[in-house]
Amino acid sequence: MKLITFNREGITTIGAIVNEEVVDLHLAYKKSLEAEGKIRAQEIANAFVPSEMTEFLQGGKESMELAKGAIDFALTNRVVDGSKLVHALSEVKVEAPVPKPGKIFAVGHNYREHILEMGREIPKYPVVFAKFANTLVGPQDDIPFHPISEQLDYEAEFAFVIGKRAKNVSEEEALDYVAGYAVANDVTYRDFQRRTLQWLQGKTVDGSLPMGPWMVTSDELPDPQTLEMVLTVNGEERQRTNTANQVFSVKHLVSFLSTIATLEPGDIVITGTPGGVIQAMEPQVWLKDGDVVRVEIEKVGVLENTVRAVKGE
Amino acid sequence: MKLITFNREGITTIGAIVNEEVVDLHLAYKKSLEAEGKIRAQEIANAFVPSEMTEFLQGGKESMELAKGAIDFALTNRVVDGSKLVHALSEVKVEAPVPKPGKIFAVGHNYREHILEMGREIPKYPVVFAKFANTLVGPQDDIPFHPISEQLDYEAEFAFVIGKRAKNVSEEEALDYVAGYAVANDVTYRDFQRRTLQWLQGKTVDGSLPMGPWMVTSDELPDPQTLEMVLTVNGEERQRTNTANQVFSVKHLVSFLSTIATLEPGDIVITGTPGGVIQAMEPQVWLKDGDVVRVEIEKVGVLENTVRAVKGE
Repeated sequence: MKLITFNREGITTIGAIVNEEVVDLHLAYKKSLEAEGKIRAQEIANAFVPSEMTEFLQGGKESMELAKGAIDFALTNRVVDGSKLVHALSEVKVEAPVPKPGKIFAVGHNYREHILEMGREIPKYPVVFAKFANTLVGPQDDIPFHPISEQLDYEAEFAFVIGKRAKNVSEEEALDYVAGYAVANDVTYRDFQRRTLQWLQGKTVDGSLPMGPWMVTSDELPDPQTLEMVLTVNGEERQRTNTANQVFSVKHLVSFLSTIATLEPGDIVITGTPGGVIQAMEPQVWLKDGDVVRVEIEKVGVLENTVRAVKGE
Repeated sequence: MKLITFNREGITTIGAIVNEEVVDLHLAYKKSLEAEGKIRAQEIANAFVPSEMTEFLQGGKESMELAKGAIDFALTNRVVDGSKLVHALSEVKVEAPVPKPGKIFAVGHNYREHILEMGREIPKYPVVFAKFANTLVGPQDDIPFHPISEQLDYEAEFAFVIGKRAKNVSEEEALDYVAGYAVANDVTYRDFQRRTLQWLQGKTVDGSLPMGPWMVTSDELPDPQTLEMVLTVNGEERQRTNTANQVFSVKHLVSFLSTIATLEPGDIVITGTPGGVIQAMEPQVWLKDGDVVRVEIEKVGVLENTVRAVKGE
């Protein structure tokens, strides 16, 4: 499935993209229960296919299967009791797929060819840092450029989302703990990142993690280490790599991070960026108002956002 | 008020410490509404004095005032309809005061005398890094010592909690955004902290942020920059400073962080540690199973936890 969080008429809920349409998963599941004669359909739907993505992911594979059934129901019952279970994409606003993760781990220096071309050594351990959930924006949002800095940069990133509580998980079983994959852009205020030892202040600025447009569930992407990733700015290619070049693979990261912290459903890991960021260019022409940044990852999707200067702050 | 989160008979809720007893704030407020004849007492209590601390803090000063009224009601109506509104401390388990913060910011290198004695320069900008909420444990919990490392260290920290959404707040108005203060211990796995450029992996290990026993509301502590802080291990003094020595004060940190990220009620900031950590000792005798680490901050409280080796991980 391609899972999304979307807003329609002021209500935010979860959906699945099917044939370029949006199935309202929570409502479709509730209506399918009502069609079976279940009186407590609302309560059961709240329990198994709730309208909030992190809560939905807490239901694990059981909720995923029920959501698939809800899609089948919706495609044959597009309108039930006057309620539309399927919407045109143009009728909804798509948000970041997981708007309220408990943790966002980010990985630095994770693409082999880029590390070698910089003359660095391949790291023994992943460099991990944090972003908080205030950074998340969706595929139809602008990237807010806050007037705290002039050094706004992009970082194409392959993201994964945890689907099952994970503690001390082995690499062999690690992919079973991944709910799905998404495209992300680790937008960075470079001077804020570099002016102290720790990167956080340049990394967790409001709106600095566009993500989406959807999360591809892991059953549809059994091998996450074969995917081409390309970033363009106003159509000009800036970054290109393949997840095969990652030093620390998805399964290594799940296993490693789960030795540090208990990973929870909805937790996000963005797995690093290759060469080609503005920071490393000469001259450094930073992002500016109106620039269009597009990240495409093979078999996952395309995330395109426009940089927009924030005024009046 | 001294606000706590506590568990009794499997139910977690919020309370206030009054005369070494625990007032159940949510229940007391609900019972006070019922005494006024309000039929929707439960719904009103859920809205204004809910049982979860972050949600309670979202109610701002209005909810704080209602909680004070609930305390007055409970002290004159200790048992209502068979429900105890006041408990002996021994009857409850006290948890971390804010168990589910959206963000935990931590500050490094923030005590002037320690920076100078190390021959470093006073930093121009705060060094900030993250911990996630998986780190929080309460005043009656042990500090779990996970067998991933042998280098377990303490860091006495003065913590504050945000009480009102804050974005681009000036230093002059900053303290109005602080709900209260607490004692914390930024437990650190030193080798994990140092083995890569970014500290996160040594800082966000499960259970590595004991906090409590309560949060002193900011109306009772108008000047947070005059407080003596002492840390002992098994009774031996290791760290001593005064918040007057902070390079970046609470109001500076609120203002600075609010230019980066929108701060939300329940967000925690731990404001740095002075000299005296094990990392800087010769020889380095790391914390071990059974060690008792005690942090006392004048006018705030005493937090004491025992290190306990985790087996079978």
